[in-house]
Amino acid sequence: MSIAILGYGNIGSGVLSVLRKNATEIAKRAGGLIEVKYVLDIRDFSKSPDAKLFVNNIDVILEDKSIDTVVETMGGTNPAYFYVKSALMSGKNVCTSNKELVATHGAELLLLAKNNNVAFLFEASVGGGMPLIGPMHKSLSANIIESIYGIVNGTTNFMLTKMDTDGVDFSEALSEAQALGYAETVDPSADVDGIDAGRKIAILASLVYGTEIHPDDIPAKGIRDITTNDINFAKHFDMSIKLIAYARKNEIGEFCCAVEPMLIKNENRLAGVSDVFNAVMICGDLLGDVMFYGKGAGKLPTASAVVADIIDATRFGSKLHDTLFWQPSIGGEKITDNNTYTYYIRVETKENQDISEFAPEKNKTAISGNEVAFISPLLNLDELNEFTEKLSAAKILVKSVIKTMP
Amino acid sequence: MSIAILGYGNIGSGVLSVLRKNATEIAKRAGGLIEVKYVLDIRDFSKSPDAKLFVNNIDVILEDKSIDTVVETMGGTNPAYFYVKSALMSGKNVCTSNKELVATHGAELLLLAKNNNVAFLFEASVGGGMPLIGPMHKSLSANIIESIYGIVNGTTNFMLTKMDTDGVDFSEALSEAQALGYAETVDPSADVDGIDAGRKIAILASLVYGTEIHPDDIPAKGIRDITTNDINFAKHFDMSIKLIAYARKNEIGEFCCAVEPMLIKNENRLAGVSDVFNAVMICGDLLGDVMFYGKGAGKLPTASAVVADIIDATRFGSKLHDTLFWQPSIGGEKITDNNTYTYYIRVETKENQDISEFAPEKNKTAISGNEVAFISPLLNLDELNEFTEKLSAAKILVKSVIKTMP
Repeated sequence: MSIAILGYGNIGSGVLSVLRKNATEIAKRAGGLIEVKYVLDIRDFSKSPDAKLFVNNIDVILEDKSIDTVVETMGGTNPAYFYVKSALMSGKNVCTSNKELVATHGAELLLLAKNNNVAFLFEASVGGGMPLIGPMHKSLSANIIESIYGIVNGTTNFMLTKMDTDGVDFSEALSEAQALGYAETVDPSADVDGIDAGRKIAILASLVYGTEIHPDDIPAKGIRDITTNDINFAKHFDMSIKLIAYARKNEIGEFCCAVEPMLIKNENRLAGVSDVFNAVMICGDLLGDVMFYGKGAGKLPTASAVVADIIDATRFGSKLHDTLFWQPSIGGEKITDNNTYTYYIRVETKENQDISEFAPEKNKTAISGNEVAFISPLLNLDELNEFTEKLSAAKILVKSVIKTMP
Repeated sequence: MSIAILGYGNIGSGVLSVLRKNATEIAKRAGGLIEVKYVLDIRDFSKSPDAKLFVNNIDVILEDKSIDTVVETMGGTNPAYFYVKSALMSGKNVCTSNKELVATHGAELLLLAKNNNVAFLFEASVGGGMPLIGPMHKSLSANIIESIYGIVNGTTNFMLTKMDTDGVDFSEALSEAQALGYAETVDPSADVDGIDAGRKIAILASLVYGTEIHPDDIPAKGIRDITTNDINFAKHFDMSIKLIAYARKNEIGEFCCAVEPMLIKNENRLAGVSDVFNAVMICGDLLGDVMFYGKGAGKLPTASAVVADIIDATRFGSKLHDTLFWQPSIGGEKITDNNTYTYYIRVETKENQDISEFAPEKNKTAISGNEVAFISPLLNLDELNEFTEKLSAAKILVKSVIKTMP
């Protein structure tokens, strides 16, 4: 069978490499050799050994009836969204690694795929090569999924690990991440402000709840405000700080979803996930907790997930959308998580200032210089506001407030 | 659609519960309500509220054309093997949790399923409800899998955890496991001697290598000989002892497979897997390491995996065997792992006895009372024999030899 690749960047060229490297094995699994017939890229690849594959007009691909599947690895939504839409409408499967596209247009593209009897697959969009979306909608299909807590951004996890192990501050950790190519040099905000993680949890939450959760509606907070003081206090409490993307239902079935740094007890397996590793803990109503863990990111790992999708699309087509599907959103309101949590609160105190009214429990309080950190009682959002207002009223300067993982 | 359940034990009754508990969600995913029409069990369930479902003659089920799928949760191979064979030959999908059946007759049953255009699925046979077989043959389908290292027997992992945290010895840990229902009271050998783990790695290895690896050919060693001394020495080396089932290819593509206790560096994520939890680390040639982690076992978790298989079988049938398949074995020879490993060796020494010839590296040697433990250089099997013979010749009593994980 023949495919076309849109975008010859890191992942797109990886797909070509993977298809060549493991050609025999892949052919066996796909039921036939997968041949890359076109690569679409506006840049000049005339000197590449694969020069003959390159085209710069999407119509060549759309009009070629021998193309079963289109791989989209351009990133962004323009022109990826239009190209993907056209490919699906031309009766071609689409496999993509583009989380922004899936998070913002997933519901529409899934419906389009279903209506055109083709598959729209995106395993590589969350967790890179680590299997996640497949197991969620296939292996866990007898479960009602109650919660997902994930470390889904390798860059920020690397930075938090550096801050923890080397004692460097945010900006130094960022420089290191940039030097290693983990973070963008010009504008690293997609990673450090939780935007990337927000897109990923939007995809997982949409899949779990069957209705689109748009990334714009998910409260997302990054790690810019985390200091080494926070990390050291967390250690004192036998906890770690991780950027967590979560989606959960509470006891009365209300759904919420957010991205934010959280303090996690070190006994929790997510706490030990370090460097660029990803890990996602999923709780099913029957199964309890299962965790998926891996490096995931990188050219070949991510490309291998795209190729697994090509194989799946080839074999099962639109039938996959019996379980891989979500409805368009009706809301558009920002999601609020009004469940109660305990919070880590770091304050600056003046000499001899007594804060025992706020932090009555000794084992949940730590002092370092003129700073005190403590774990609050269970508070919902209003109660948290009230609590911090009382601190301010008592002339106690609140320097940091971080949710703890339940 | 209608199904029949063979065997109304823990898992079989769990499947009925799961299908009722999440009926709406499951119907949506399977494309229709799944109705349990028969339960086969020779015991008397005439007083059960579901009495009308029970039959004691397999022919009733085999001859009923409305039965699409048969769930086999009897365990053992007699009569499960004959029933499953007959069901497949009658054109019915079979979903089973029976690892013994799959490990010993998998190749034949997979071929029979393919030839009869039905599915033979067994996600629940390894890792209980934890997704593993599905992700391996679907999500990782672009990878060549290079190694699998797994903690796949919850009972022995619970016992090793008890020995580690509470300092109890093997027999006390076994009593606790028996009291909690984790280990069989009459004959716990399937768990403690690595037989159960051997069946599970036989299934995973067969899937990965495409040719049946029979459990009888896999060297299996359990945890009977592990003492608290071993566990304490391991701690000294910043390592933990786990019962590991593994399958790997070495640098020249030779395949090997075994079950045995191993010393694992605590920095390895498998080392932290405690209690009844399972975890399997898979290394793909493109993806690198990914780990699946969960409790897995138990009535509803395991049943949820069986139900996911029913959904899969209903939707995709024999097409699943394009990737979920292995050939019958040609060999029958015991597998030998002749790769080099470093070994943990515990010896008893007499007063003033010098063992520095055998254990030259101070940081890899520990002393406690009249015992010394050390980590050997890299040795293959012959070299290991030679090494321990030399120890004996020097009148040093070898009390324990345990492989370390590479």
